[in-house]
Amino acid sequence: MTSFVRNQWYVAAYGSEIGRTLFSRTVCSEPLLLWRTEAGAVTAMADRCVHRRFPLSQQPSRLDGDQVVCGYHGFTYGADGACVSVPGQQRIPRTARLATYPVVEQDSFVWVWIGEPEGADAELIPRAPWLDRPGWSVVSGMEPLAARYGLLVDNLLDLSHETYLHGGYIGTPEVAETPITTEVDEAAGIVRVSRHMEDAACPPFYAESTGIEGRITRWQDIEYHAPCLYLLHSRIAPVGTPPPRSDGSDPGAFHVEVVYAITPETDGSTHDFWAVARDFALEDEKVTDFLRENNRTVVLQDVVALEVLEKAVASEPPGRQELSINIDTGGLAARRILGRLREEGERRPEPATR
Amino acid sequence: MTSFVRNQWYVAAYGSEIGRTLFSRTVCSEPLLLWRTEAGAVTAMADRCVHRRFPLSQQPSRLDGDQVVCGYHGFTYGADGACVSVPGQQRIPRTARLATYPVVEQDSFVWVWIGEPEGADAELIPRAPWLDRPGWSVVSGMEPLAARYGLLVDNLLDLSHETYLHGGYIGTPEVAETPITTEVDEAAGIVRVSRHMEDAACPPFYAESTGIEGRITRWQDIEYHAPCLYLLHSRIAPVGTPPPRSDGSDPGAFHVEVVYAITPETDGSTHDFWAVARDFALEDEKVTDFLRENNRTVVLQDVVALEVLEKAVASEPPGRQELSINIDTGGLAARRILGRLREEGERRPEPATR
Amino acid sequence: MTSFVRNQWYVAAYGSEIGRTLFSRTVCSEPLLLWRTEAGAVTAMADRCVHRRFPLSQQPSRLDGDQVVCGYHGFTYGADGACVSVPGQQRIPRTARLATYPVVEQDSFVWVWIGEPEGADAELIPRAPWLDRPGWSVVSGMEPLAARYGLLVDNLLDLSHETYLHGGYIGTPEVAETPITTEVDEAAGIVRVSRHMEDAACPPFYAESTGIEGRITRWQDIEYHAPCLYLLHSRIAPVGTPPPRSDGSDPGAFHVEVVYAITPETDGSTHDFWAVARDFALEDEKVTDFLRENNRTVVLQDVVALEVLEKAVASEPPGRQELSINIDTGGLAARRILGRLREEGERRPEPATR
Repeated sequence: MTSFVRNQWYVAAYGSEIGRTLFSRTVCSEPLLLWRTEAGAVTAMADRCVHRRFPLSQQPSRLDGDQVVCGYHGFTYGADGACVSVPGQQRIPRTARLATYPVVEQDSFVWVWIGEPEGADAELIPRAPWLDRPGWSVVSGMEPLAARYGLLVDNLLDLSHETYLHGGYIGTPEVAETPITTEVDEAAGIVRVSRHMEDAACPPFYAESTGIEGRITRWQDIEYHAPCLYLLHSRIAPVGTPPPRSDGSDPGAFHVEVVYAITPETDGSTHDFWAVARDFALEDEKVTDFLRENNRTVVLQDVVALEVLEKAVASEPPGRQELSINIDTGGLAARRILGRLREEGERRPEPATR
Repeated sequence: MTSFVRNQWYVAAYGSEIGRTLFSRTVCSEPLLLWRTEAGAVTAMADRCVHRRFPLSQQPSRLDGDQVVCGYHGFTYGADGACVSVPGQQRIPRTARLATYPVVEQDSFVWVWIGEPEGADAELIPRAPWLDRPGWSVVSGMEPLAARYGLLVDNLLDLSHETYLHGGYIGTPEVAETPITTEVDEAAGIVRVSRHMEDAACPPFYAESTGIEGRITRWQDIEYHAPCLYLLHSRIAPVGTPPPRSDGSDPGAFHVEVVYAITPETDGSTHDFWAVARDFALEDEKVTDFLRENNRTVVLQDVVALEVLEKAVASEPPGRQELSINIDTGGLAARRILGRLREEGERRPEPATR
Repeated sequence: MTSFVRNQWYVAAYGSEIGRTLFSRTVCSEPLLLWRTEAGAVTAMADRCVHRRFPLSQQPSRLDGDQVVCGYHGFTYGADGACVSVPGQQRIPRTARLATYPVVEQDSFVWVWIGEPEGADAELIPRAPWLDRPGWSVVSGMEPLAARYGLLVDNLLDLSHETYLHGGYIGTPEVAETPITTEVDEAAGIVRVSRHMEDAACPPFYAESTGIEGRITRWQDIEYHAPCLYLLHSRIAPVGTPPPRSDGSDPGAFHVEVVYAITPETDGSTHDFWAVARDFALEDEKVTDFLRENNRTVVLQDVVALEVLEKAVASEPPGRQELSINIDTGGLAARRILGRLREEGERRPEPATR
């Protein structure tokens, strides 16, 4: 059994990364070739020529209109993966066809389906609408992480680490001190972890971006849609601000939607997509620049720590002992769900259900 | 079963590489120590001291007359591999002897026999006489290739890749378009692949070296002597030049003999020896420099592509699917012959036959 | 069975390396966290948080008084390994405790016991008193060695290699030429190898440090206390100097105590601690500097050679052939003792005996 959850949608890229040049990214150990047709659609296919396994993303392979020409012997493929030309002969073997992957471009991401194509129901893709919606400003990036994806899931489901690993950025003592509540929707594969701090110090990340000077009410509401999408609904308001109204409006507070897409590359490496959307100071470039730099710094603090942890864990015999406490409730639920999805993913899914 | 073909001659070096300093090269995973005696003969022996396995090529090991002194404890060996001195005692153990390898210096190469010494018949060594014969000018080199040798055999047996990987150097559209003829001499272990282009563009490699300005007749006649020697007889002539005469003379044409020796180093690395001999512009240094630089560039294009391919192939489970077409006839024949030779090489050969 | 000898004392560090910052060193594949309490005692514990295995030596982990705070989630431990604080809750799980290691600081070294703690008898630690005693001047260092520890044991037990690998530093022809005597105390795990050269050239290492200009009497008396401590008692005197008196005094000679601690890091790497103590020119900085530089050069000559050898040995199938001669008597005895100790170390020892 592989360590990956198959028959699932994964974020392979930002839409902005994919254009009219050949782009390669490995997802769940499958090398993908991504490119945009002349009409603007994102296409995903196997990044290996059927002839001698040459990576089609490798120069001098190239895009010619809506066809991919292999740089080794010139095998040429259309956007549907079918081979349309081979060297030295007219006849094209019937089996000369690249595997293609279902693709959906949504919420600024390129989602690909890793598994049996008949299961690829676009309705199953979880949403992160703030990343591509009027009224929100977004900064984003992707950091390569040389660690198994499970370590990043653990990390994000338990934010008490902000106090220690991200002190001076997003962590304050109250994060680690405040108990959490955890809700698990096993059927939907969603874990929710909430920590509401009613009177807390305001960390630099929020003080500088919102301009708040005193203590704050700080709510962290995590929603993890296994396996790939992690949402942190962050609400920041000066202490004493009224709570959100019954109609959902919340004029006194600042809202930040922190989004991660956690995409396994190989057994020991992960694509760590991160984005921060805000509903305030929308046009303020200084706030934009500050949040981009500050959040990237925080992500890189995690990357450094998790790469150290990966090496520690990889050098130990399997069955290492861990000790879990209350803060780990969300992370343990996520592991349980991932384990079940992994088992289910090994079976061939029925179309459009799970 | 190893991936190497044993009981075969391999090119270990150019003769010019071997002198009065200790030289090491690994062939088929066997570390060889090569040096030249005071009388000028090339000597090949195991590059590991019998005492504690120290590499004899490693400083401060040194040559002292026709003896090799180990730099670790001073074990000293003659050119026949026999130990002649050990530290701290007069008695030399009877078994203190390095394995030696049969060596033949011929056609500018140092050939060594990898296998049971009694099978080492020098008559079995295929020839590349142009590399060391009056009337020919030669440029040559060796590039280390971090890929299994079979990928280089595939590459060289199918020159349709010139059009794509080496466009602007030696490739033109006609190479990939022109069908090949293939002949296989299974008993002798020779594969012949011919492609005769009667009216083709002249690539820069030949245009600049011959001075031809228009279209050319271009013949590529490959002769692969498994496992190690690859010959490409290349005939270039302006369109309309008469064919070679019945006596073999061919005054209107330019002849280039492209020679490769494909020597496995380890399971995943290869010594890629290349040489280009020409029968024209013999004294023209500009042509010499141009061909050296241009051919080295072409070889390095292959090296880059094959190293990418090696990583792609090595990361896949065994039994990867390939799709072969007409252009692969020669390469598939080579694989079949190598497979048979590998099996035969595992058995102890009878002296001087195969 | 591991390749390490368990239930033994090992040198983990010089005392001077351990202070009020968290220090990590791996011994026998066990990652140790070393630090000094406010009272000055050296403490050794497992360098992995019990929670999620984060290395406690990794920033931003830190020392807070006599407590270690994990930089990931803030688990906090006392010098006895017991966890005293966890995030988000008051209750501390009973099993939250780091393994600690018995430690003895002695003769400038920090010794740790690798094995079952109840066997850790400080009386078993072999002594190297010259490293921390009036009347002696010491230079020392530690070089990381990317080779299995057995190669360093072999190296040091057979000094005939000085003539070849360390010629111009500590080697002269007489070392390799002079026979050795070997004594083995199997029960105590001690190997003694002696080589007494009564009329030998004086190598630069001793000529420059002692000022002797002519030929010397040179005694090398090795005492190897398996597995970790190696002592070379070196006596240098001008030819004709009377031997040591019956009361042990030896006024005409120069004495150098060369000490190595051979500490396995992993299966393929070793901590190579070295020290040189002398009973002459005690305050002479030039001699101190010379001996430090010269001995470090000699150690690095070994490091280069042994790393080459490690690669050679690691690339060979197991069961490689070696050929041993008289000079190897000590090394073979050491291997035999290490093999026995390894077997014994796999069994749980009774307290304070071996």
